[in-house]
Amino acid sequence: MSLLVVGSVAFDSIDTPHGRAERVLGGSGTYLAYAASLYTNVRLIGAVGDDFTEEHVNILRQRGIDLSGLQRKKGKTFFWHGRYFADMNERETLKVELNVFGDYEPELPEKFRDSEYVFLANARPALQIKVRKQLKKPRLVFCDTMDLWIETERDELMSLLGMVDGIVLNDGEARKLTENNFPTLIGAGRQIMRFGPKYVIVKKGEHGALLLTPDGVFATAAYPLEHVFDPTGAGDTFGGGVLGYLAKTGDLSFDNLKKAIIHGTVVASFTVEKFSLDRLREISQSDLEGRYAEMVAMLKFC
Amino acid sequence: MSLLVVGSVAFDSIDTPHGRAERVLGGSGTYLAYAASLYTNVRLIGAVGDDFTEEHVNILRQRGIDLSGLQRKKGKTFFWHGRYFADMNERETLKVELNVFGDYEPELPEKFRDSEYVFLANARPALQIKVRKQLKKPRLVFCDTMDLWIETERDELMSLLGMVDGIVLNDGEARKLTENNFPTLIGAGRQIMRFGPKYVIVKKGEHGALLLTPDGVFATAAYPLEHVFDPTGAGDTFGGGVLGYLAKTGDLSFDNLKKAIIHGTVVASFTVEKFSLDRLREISQSDLEGRYAEMVAMLKFC
Repeated sequence: MSLLVVGSVAFDSIDTPHGRAERVLGGSGTYLAYAASLYTNVRLIGAVGDDFTEEHVNILRQRGIDLSGLQRKKGKTFFWHGRYFADMNERETLKVELNVFGDYEPELPEKFRDSEYVFLANARPALQIKVRKQLKKPRLVFCDTMDLWIETERDELMSLLGMVDGIVLNDGEARKLTENNFPTLIGAGRQIMRFGPKYVIVKKGEHGALLLTPDGVFATAAYPLEHVFDPTGAGDTFGGGVLGYLAKTGDLSFDNLKKAIIHGTVVASFTVEKFSLDRLREISQSDLEGRYAEMVAMLKFC
Repeated sequence: MSLLVVGSVAFDSIDTPHGRAERVLGGSGTYLAYAASLYTNVRLIGAVGDDFTEEHVNILRQRGIDLSGLQRKKGKTFFWHGRYFADMNERETLKVELNVFGDYEPELPEKFRDSEYVFLANARPALQIKVRKQLKKPRLVFCDTMDLWIETERDELMSLLGMVDGIVLNDGEARKLTENNFPTLIGAGRQIMRFGPKYVIVKKGEHGALLLTPDGVFATAAYPLEHVFDPTGAGDTFGGGVLGYLAKTGDLSFDNLKKAIIHGTVVASFTVEKFSLDRLREISQSDLEGRYAEMVAMLKFC
């Protein structure tokens, strides 16, 4: 099945200790859609400005992503400038310009309203809710979020949690969302399940990911990389891999959810090896399958 | 085969947000030896004061631990007082009294010198080296260490790394030992292998553990606990489970090392459920096997 993705399409400037990228293609929707397109057909909803060139469009179009819901508006595309520190685990936002994404009102093309698999990538909860409400009868809706919305739009975020099947968020966000009331991420994850989502996936960067479901808990390490070049987009492409695989297989069993987590882990491991989508654009199906097999071999021990 | 353990035997006072323990049995050697005794025969080397009662001795003796290398000296037993904060991941040392452990000169009984499996639990590197040098022809020697020794006895610690087969240390220690020069723990672990150890095991608390070997890398999540009562001894009992299982099986293949890591993970998950050795003293072989089976089921996905 197709996966509908809504999220930001952006330009990122990224400073790392070993190099700098200037106004490269980024954004939660972009990363997520691209990663999911490695598994299934993808429909991307969002808004870009008139500085978004044919070249950028082609990067997404080459993956067969349906861009008929991508609005082109007068003005500039969403821009983010961030900096990573020596250990690459911490980052600082230097500048955010919402631009055309600031007053974007998502309007789903009629043909997208019956989408069964949907990922509401990181964006304002109010915007995510608007998209959720236009869906007729989705089978699986996931969302992501970020610190900022937990702080500034907590009420809308809690409402959103009541209308999704799953959430993907990082460890710091899981702790913040549960007001640091739980000593373990398992405890925090279970609390988030009480807010609505049946599935809670906690991303832990180089420590891997945690999946909580009504059928049990799964935890996996990340793919063991020695070098991380640029972590931007790792979490979004992880989510894209997970939902892309679930949409492709249509199987929501606990076992298949575990496999989806490993696929997300594999895609994210490529993302961080170069800036932007550069590494994902290079890899082939057999590269993906190779690392998946490595993860299977690593995790197998009996 | 037997496992020889050298390390501290101590009394701990522990403050946690949900309760306090006063002068309970603790110490790296104690925890490690007790955990290993769930798998194999254990010989414990160390020193205690005259405040160490028959009751304390019996806790270890009941597990069949050979205490003929445990010196009883005039004075008080090593004492540590620590406090955990709300999220249980951070702790502060409030007091340390080395007491009889301060001038302890380890002298291995002749019958212990041919020990094949050895764990030099956390103690001064100089002391660990002295024990290492008394071993005739060990098959597998592991050590642990801590922040303090990385800061104050770095030279001795580096020498020690040249004479052990493996090291177990936590993530913060791995980063500190490699002077924060590596963005990932895999990178830090590989660097530590260059100092000597063939096997590097990085403990990551609730994020599980990482095993680096010449044959590959293994990473596992921790057993998914919702509540952590007291993390004291988790790392030592993890190490005890790992080495206890390896000594019992005598199999150093990559596959068996992975199993050992899971056994360590399981033992540690019980340790943190109560103060001191209280939870480990309650559990049966089938409790251990039950959680091991749960870990296997959790990690299995294809």
